[in-house]
Amino acid sequence: MKLTFTKMHGAGNDFVVIDGVNQHIDFTPAQWKLLGDRRFGVGADQILLVERPTEAGCDFRYRIFNADGGEVEQCGNGSRAFVKFVSEKGLTDKQSITVQTKAGVIAPRLEIDGSITVDMGAPVLEPARVPFDAEGLHGERQGQDTLWPLVLELGGARESVLISVVSMGNPHAVQVVPEVDTAPVELTGPLIEHHCRFPNRVNAGFMQVVNRQHVKLRVFERGVGETLACGTGSCAAVVAGIRRGLLDSPVRVDARGGQLSVAWAGEGQPAFLTGPAVTVFEGEIEI
Amino acid sequence: MKLTFTKMHGAGNDFVVIDGVNQHIDFTPAQWKLLGDRRFGVGADQILLVERPTEAGCDFRYRIFNADGGEVEQCGNGSRAFVKFVSEKGLTDKQSITVQTKAGVIAPRLEIDGSITVDMGAPVLEPARVPFDAEGLHGERQGQDTLWPLVLELGGARESVLISVVSMGNPHAVQVVPEVDTAPVELTGPLIEHHCRFPNRVNAGFMQVVNRQHVKLRVFERGVGETLACGTGSCAAVVAGIRRGLLDSPVRVDARGGQLSVAWAGEGQPAFLTGPAVTVFEGEIEI
Repeated sequence: MKLTFTKMHGAGNDFVVIDGVNQHIDFTPAQWKLLGDRRFGVGADQILLVERPTEAGCDFRYRIFNADGGEVEQCGNGSRAFVKFVSEKGLTDKQSITVQTKAGVIAPRLEIDGSITVDMGAPVLEPARVPFDAEGLHGERQGQDTLWPLVLELGGARESVLISVVSMGNPHAVQVVPEVDTAPVELTGPLIEHHCRFPNRVNAGFMQVVNRQHVKLRVFERGVGETLACGTGSCAAVVAGIRRGLLDSPVRVDARGGQLSVAWAGEGQPAFLTGPAVTVFEGEIEI
Repeated sequence: MKLTFTKMHGAGNDFVVIDGVNQHIDFTPAQWKLLGDRRFGVGADQILLVERPTEAGCDFRYRIFNADGGEVEQCGNGSRAFVKFVSEKGLTDKQSITVQTKAGVIAPRLEIDGSITVDMGAPVLEPARVPFDAEGLHGERQGQDTLWPLVLELGGARESVLISVVSMGNPHAVQVVPEVDTAPVELTGPLIEHHCRFPNRVNAGFMQVVNRQHVKLRVFERGVGETLACGTGSCAAVVAGIRRGLLDSPVRVDARGGQLSVAWAGEGQPAFLTGPAVTVFEGEIEI
């Protein structure tokens, strides 16, 4: 079939966005993977599929496929691209829409300045539900948060890092580092991702606190590697920082690919992620 | 402006191909670089521009821009994409065309099976014209070729590799290795590329001889890094192998991204490169 698509990015996190309302999409994992391939396909961190909802009261269903072909729960930067897409393509004329995702219903809003705010839902803080296996571990209290010691095997040596665990629909392990630019993201990211205490693996966040309303963040994403910006990772990091007593909402998050903002009113409340989404090009591929 | 483009690949070496006959193209290096960016632009190893010729007797002018924004002389896989493009877009109905490039006139031919043969011109074998500074070096004769010892500084230690030097419009340093899969391409590629004896830097080829008509090849490309396939590198490697007395024309070249074939009748004769070119998708970008 001839597939039309839009290439977009949100703070450097890039997406192939597909209108599955006006096109019949039924791809195999191999086809999703091909679309995500930067040489033999279109290439992107993730592929976003816009579909008709199967749940009552929702405007759209939003599905996310990683470049490795697997379907994932949630992607904050992708949600913004999603809203820009349905707005630009005239699939809706609402400013605020309700969207069915694998991680629950989200309600993104197009702001007057063109940026998009996404209600990312309330963070899940209970370790077992992240999921994180805290069995037998002694956590250290900091503010309202618990810092868990995670032992990493680094070439024979053992190193322990203190992490907060947060789920934003997908699991995150957040640590505070003195400086993001020199943080060992490539080295320890994969070890954290695959650590046996995270049964579904985990996204590893490295956060530098600049001041109480400004952090710098790098995220090693599960199944992807380091990306230029991670939306759910930004929320998880800010939630952890606020709970630790280090940050006040709203917090500016400088990712490598651009600037985001996260607002969170505290436990039980949803996190709101604001940031840009940019259309890069339109394309058509035979698949 | 709204630019239409075609994304193509030749054995995994990928290209953004632009019709500069029907579109007025006058981009800055920054704009070429943006087009080559895989997240903020379209993304490719190189951008190919099809223009009207400025030389009499040529059908087209063909210009090549690297992902870093700089213009380069020649690209074998790109030439095939170029031919497929001008044929598919109806810019010509000839099977064989003459094309003005920065490295001279080339004459590619569309084969009946859809593959494309490119006359890559005669290899330049005189070291000074590659250019390679052989001053004071003692080369070792092998067949009709001279193997030059190239000293590399590897973390304090010094290692000498024996290379053939060949220009196919761009400079190549070819070495024979026992096995390409374990060859230290990432480690020594950059050292060879920037070796002081190559005033214009060089592409580093690592060739495994399977039999007299079959090699496996990896190439560390100047300004790019390792690519999935390098057309001029394939020619340079086969020319060097034939001169060394190891190969007989035509030679099948297995690159990481696909299979190519090189025919060469000997000194003074052009090398012919045959291989596939594939259209991946069509696109439109505001630039």
